[in-house]
Amino acid sequence: MSDEATIAAPSPAPPAPTGPPPKVTNRGRAAAPAASANSETSDIPEYEYFIQPGPRGYPPLTEYLDISEVDMMKRPDESNKIAHHTALYHSDYLIVRRGQEFQVKITFSRPYKPAEDKFALEFVIGSSPQFSKGTYVPVFPTKQRQTTWEGRITNTSDNVVTMAITPAANCIVGKYQMYVAVVTPYGIRRTRKESTRDMYILFNPWVAEDAVFLDDETERQECVMTEMGIIYHGSYDDIAERDWNYGQFNYGILDSCLYIMDRAEMPITNRGDPIKIVRVASAMLNSRDDEGVLVGNWSGDYTYGVAPTSWTGSTDILLTYNSSKMPVCYAQCWVYAAVFNTFLRCLGIPSRVVTNYYSAHDNDGNLKTDIIMDENGKIDRNRTRDSIWNYHCWNECYMSRPDLPPGFGGWQVVDATPQETSDGMYRCGPASVQAIKHGQICFPFDAAFVFAEINSDVVFHSRRKDGTLEPVRVNRTHVGRLVLTKSPGDVTRRDITDQYKFAEGSTEERTVLEKAEEYGCKREKSSPPAADVDVVLPNLEISVGDNFELNVEFENKSDERRTVDAYISGSVVYYTGVASTEFLKYTHIKVEIFLYLTDKKEVAIVESKKYMKRLVEQANLHFIVTGKIRETGLIITAMKVVTLRNPKLIIEVSGRGKVSEEMIATVEFTNPFSFNLENVYIRMEGPGMMEPKSRYYSSKRKKNKTPISKDSLYVLICFQNPTVRTCYIVFR
Amino acid sequence: MSDEATIAAPSPAPPAPTGPPPKVTNRGRAAAPAASANSETSDIPEYEYFIQPGPRGYPPLTEYLDISEVDMMKRPDESNKIAHHTALYHSDYLIVRRGQEFQVKITFSRPYKPAEDKFALEFVIGSSPQFSKGTYVPVFPTKQRQTTWEGRITNTSDNVVTMAITPAANCIVGKYQMYVAVVTPYGIRRTRKESTRDMYILFNPWVAEDAVFLDDETERQECVMTEMGIIYHGSYDDIAERDWNYGQFNYGILDSCLYIMDRAEMPITNRGDPIKIVRVASAMLNSRDDEGVLVGNWSGDYTYGVAPTSWTGSTDILLTYNSSKMPVCYAQCWVYAAVFNTFLRCLGIPSRVVTNYYSAHDNDGNLKTDIIMDENGKIDRNRTRDSIWNYHCWNECYMSRPDLPPGFGGWQVVDATPQETSDGMYRCGPASVQAIKHGQICFPFDAAFVFAEINSDVVFHSRRKDGTLEPVRVNRTHVGRLVLTKSPGDVTRRDITDQYKFAEGSTEERTVLEKAEEYGCKREKSSPPAADVDVVLPNLEISVGDNFELNVEFENKSDERRTVDAYISGSVVYYTGVASTEFLKYTHIKVEIFLYLTDKKEVAIVESKKYMKRLVEQANLHFIVTGKIRETGLIITAMKVVTLRNPKLIIEVSGRGKVSEEMIATVEFTNPFSFNLENVYIRMEGPGMMEPKSRYYSSKRKKNKTPISKDSLYVLICFQNPTVRTCYIVFR
Repeated sequence: MSDEATIAAPSPAPPAPTGPPPKVTNRGRAAAPAASANSETSDIPEYEYFIQPGPRGYPPLTEYLDISEVDMMKRPDESNKIAHHTALYHSDYLIVRRGQEFQVKITFSRPYKPAEDKFALEFVIGSSPQFSKGTYVPVFPTKQRQTTWEGRITNTSDNVVTMAITPAANCIVGKYQMYVAVVTPYGIRRTRKESTRDMYILFNPWVAEDAVFLDDETERQECVMTEMGIIYHGSYDDIAERDWNYGQFNYGILDSCLYIMDRAEMPITNRGDPIKIVRVASAMLNSRDDEGVLVGNWSGDYTYGVAPTSWTGSTDILLTYNSSKMPVCYAQCWVYAAVFNTFLRCLGIPSRVVTNYYSAHDNDGNLKTDIIMDENGKIDRNRTRDSIWNYHCWNECYMSRPDLPPGFGGWQVVDATPQETSDGMYRCGPASVQAIKHGQICFPFDAAFVFAEINSDVVFHSRRKDGTLEPVRVNRTHVGRLVLTKSPGDVTRRDITDQYKFAEGSTEERTVLEKAEEYGCKREKSSPPAADVDVVLPNLEISVGDNFELNVEFENKSDERRTVDAYISGSVVYYTGVASTEFLKYTHIKVEIFLYLTDKKEVAIVESKKYMKRLVEQANLHFIVTGKIRETGLIITAMKVVTLRNPKLIIEVSGRGKVSEEMIATVEFTNPFSFNLENVYIRMEGPGMMEPKSRYYSSKRKKNKTPISKDSLYVLICFQNPTVRTCYIVFR
Repeated sequence: MSDEATIAAPSPAPPAPTGPPPKVTNRGRAAAPAASANSETSDIPEYEYFIQPGPRGYPPLTEYLDISEVDMMKRPDESNKIAHHTALYHSDYLIVRRGQEFQVKITFSRPYKPAEDKFALEFVIGSSPQFSKGTYVPVFPTKQRQTTWEGRITNTSDNVVTMAITPAANCIVGKYQMYVAVVTPYGIRRTRKESTRDMYILFNPWVAEDAVFLDDETERQECVMTEMGIIYHGSYDDIAERDWNYGQFNYGILDSCLYIMDRAEMPITNRGDPIKIVRVASAMLNSRDDEGVLVGNWSGDYTYGVAPTSWTGSTDILLTYNSSKMPVCYAQCWVYAAVFNTFLRCLGIPSRVVTNYYSAHDNDGNLKTDIIMDENGKIDRNRTRDSIWNYHCWNECYMSRPDLPPGFGGWQVVDATPQETSDGMYRCGPASVQAIKHGQICFPFDAAFVFAEINSDVVFHSRRKDGTLEPVRVNRTHVGRLVLTKSPGDVTRRDITDQYKFAEGSTEERTVLEKAEEYGCKREKSSPPAADVDVVLPNLEISVGDNFELNVEFENKSDERRTVDAYISGSVVYYTGVASTEFLKYTHIKVEIFLYLTDKKEVAIVESKKYMKRLVEQANLHFIVTGKIRETGLIITAMKVVTLRNPKLIIEVSGRGKVSEEMIATVEFTNPFSFNLENVYIRMEGPGMMEPKSRYYSSKRKKNKTPISKDSLYVLICFQNPTVRTCYIVFR
């Protein structure tokens, strides 16, 4: 080698990155960019010749059949939308469901002659239409071997041909452009691109060949067609209801749902598969990793957005995301679930919101929630990091699961509320409810997380001085007490706990938990000895602002004297179970229960002034009683969540609710507090009747004249046309 | 309601987002932020009292046993690192493996008295140490019921106690802080935080209780301990080898690997599970969705980074990522796989890089690669969007799979090269090789994608004038011809195809494909009739710059005359099979094969000047011959990839490679081209001997005096101490 010095210099560093690298093109990686935006369209040429031009140029194709007009038959009172259950969508376009026939009318330049003329309807979606990807579909009036869509002529009358098209039951769901193409020996002559011939094709739960087929009309009416819903919350022994306007048929909502998939860059060719769609949406609904729809915020500080408890429906959220392209602030679990429900119902996938009471969220997918106490049985709040959510909301959607062994189709869990401790993936599901019930948590997707939400054990640990922990009490029944959803076609609750779990203590339940453990769900194995003193906290119905008594009952179940050193702690908690502040602390309560006196009450007085200032939204107080029995050294515990009820609104409505007739609603509210309410905000919406409205009040009539605090009120008044529904207040 | 006007105004829009929303705290959502950064540490107090201070303050705890010194026994020649196979790491810290005993020496202030003194070693990781999460572990010299780690005293001599610790075989992998804590009746007295007592605990394939246990010493030596590797590439019938320096023991690499998990915000409590770690790493190695390590670029334009073919090892890449915190430019599949291999071996998970020839990547996880031809059998390059990669590299890592039914442990596929068409998730695996072989693709994670990579059918479609496609030929054996990896302890190739697939045409193979179809992998069902003329392209060994002949053979297998209208197309392709430019086109070749003349050759002349200007890196030419038999109308096809070989380097080394003795290496290269090579760059590295070095040459001796083009050369000279390895050139 000529002209070199010794090789002694260290390697020059690669060019140091100074900023984010420039975006790399697809060149070399793929023949074309993946088509993943439904909003992008392609330009199909109006004339497409098979031959080279001759000396006189191209022959005029208009000698052949020419197209004058196309009628998409898209009015809501025409047969297409009625038969396809799509008349409720506020849309200027034709909307049909796949696997089912719809009709269009084509007016040609002269009568159609089947022996001589050849034409097709072409359905195109996205920027890169390809036959093999299902994004370019020509449909002929005669059966073609290669296409899965079908076409037939149902009527000819003068120049007008009525053609019926049946899209394949597994075709891509989204917005298509439609062309009419006449095929001649020399080339193809088409209609120009025309947005009035755009149309939407959705999922079809009415057709057996569709993966989302649901063979129950009542369920379909509820889970696809109904816009008003009830979401359960509150606490296990004091269930509260929240009305919600899903608004899936509102103007612009369907486009917002397609935008969500475009924003996720979901390849169009995959958009016929409901499993893939719900999985993408589960990630896209939260903004954790992908600029998705909603930003989660549990902190209590909602300055930069709308408080989660303030939303009354999904419409505002989806339309805002679609127009601003920015994540919407803020959400908590029911908001994620409600918006997800709108998305699913809008696309045609049957779905419902469910609520699980005492839900172990953020638990690494294992089956233990750890509560740390010191040696005396007092809760160590610094070391207790796990929490049980009072409730958690997720969605169930209905579909078959051909990607799993048989038997796991039907309702599938999807959850859009970000898991803090999944493997960095802020999505969950679809997970087969059937598989969860049977502990078959090895099947995709994320079944272990859902299983843990409803089956986790609460393990009370006693922390010894040397830092080790000893489990002293295991509560295997606290978590997943109750799973509720709204009854279809009704306003009552439906308990669906038995779809997730076998009965407590049954053989099947034991088998299921063992199977889950085989698949890696870690459980607390120890069974500390049971104490012979019970402690019970009562159920309470308390309104905000009340003073009340907390009666703690101790029951001596042995035949000897028992002395308990007990602690009562009351905290304001978020509904996630995370403690905000401890407002009540009774320590060193000595409870002596003598022989023959089997129980004893301790009464703790709770004054509203102690908790009012520390309330966070959703007004939950969490009481925990722990104690150590002197005679045996064993630990006893009891926990209770008290949901404080908000004051109610009274509505009176004039008239009977007739189309085109004005209705007047009177809303009455009495301030029950001892302080002024200022900056009051009332929100109202009525599906199909009234867009969301709100009104601001600077002050409300007060009970006495001492202004103390600022509160805001949100009111949802819901009308189910034409029946008036009850309403409720949500505190801001 | 007093003081209001009619409610007529529409709802004020929620506050319009003006920028990204401010980061939300964990308040209300979790009691503390999730501990997900190993680099964060906590402050454990030096004195921790159990009691309140008395009138005279706290009693002096130093009356009790006091700690003078701690010896971590961390030198590479001491027993810890030798027994744990960690002596090769260039590190100032103790590095051990879990599930196996290691020792430390503690010097107290006086001799240790077991009856009176109580002490523990405390192992702490992350910012939020908790016993129940495995991030705070106290280990006593006596067996404790609650801890899974074990401790025992192996020697006492004067004031020095030697304690042996066995970390649990499933403990968290990462960097711990160690404290010595003396427990007194009044409180705990500890050593201060001291970085010399930091230590790393890794996976342990030598111990049966560890999930990554691999019961084969030869495999362990290769897949954990070996730094030099061979990655196969090129084409199926012309396999090329690329040497690579994994460098897993180099200074700073272990910290870089921990940084990758921190950057992924992977909760520390999950870092004992190899399944979770490899899944997180599979996403984190590519920068697609999470600012990960490598940016993929196949375009040929590498101006802003290092060309993928230029890297000679993983060290530069990982160290650059760790210091700059920015994704490193650029990678292609073998770079992702090689860096992933370093990551896995560094942490102690046995792993190897495998290469699959003719790999169907980016195919939506289904089993069809579509090639579109017109009615005459000519390839329609505009409509053909799918491609087959000449080869694709991924990793196999070894672990049990307790999350799956029994039988699926062992080698697992993980792939860090982003899939364009997965559900937006740029990660793949771990997928059990055993499950893939048996078509059980329903089990997590992403098995269907890997299955398709090796089992896809190539379907040739004929496009009719009306736009529909008809499959005319299905090649079921083209994809997944060969899966290679390096033999352990040797420089030969090992064919592991039979670990992924049953033999072509066997009953088992058919069963497997049917099972995969049950789980939703779509396959081409049609079996077009077989043509009775074969067409074959030869194997070729061509060097860059050669002119050569392409001999196409047609064989008439019928007993009649056959006339074929054939087309030959030659393109420069990227190794992804994506065509760059077509440089050779022979159309309208009429091949007449008369009766009794069973075959005929057509010769196409390929001149180097036709392709040289259009070459992209990795110099692949792709020839495809298609034709239509006039007599029967059937289509015949043949495809061949020709990898152009690069000129070689010749190395001579003086001396025998003795420790501390200088070695001189002479590198000789002859320019074979007819043009000058300018801007030549030589890179060299030698594991354990020489850090990466490079040297720049402005011009190389030329064959003739006409400078034509600028090329750069990269050279890897690899030394396996003390044997000299061969080297190769990589064109830039």
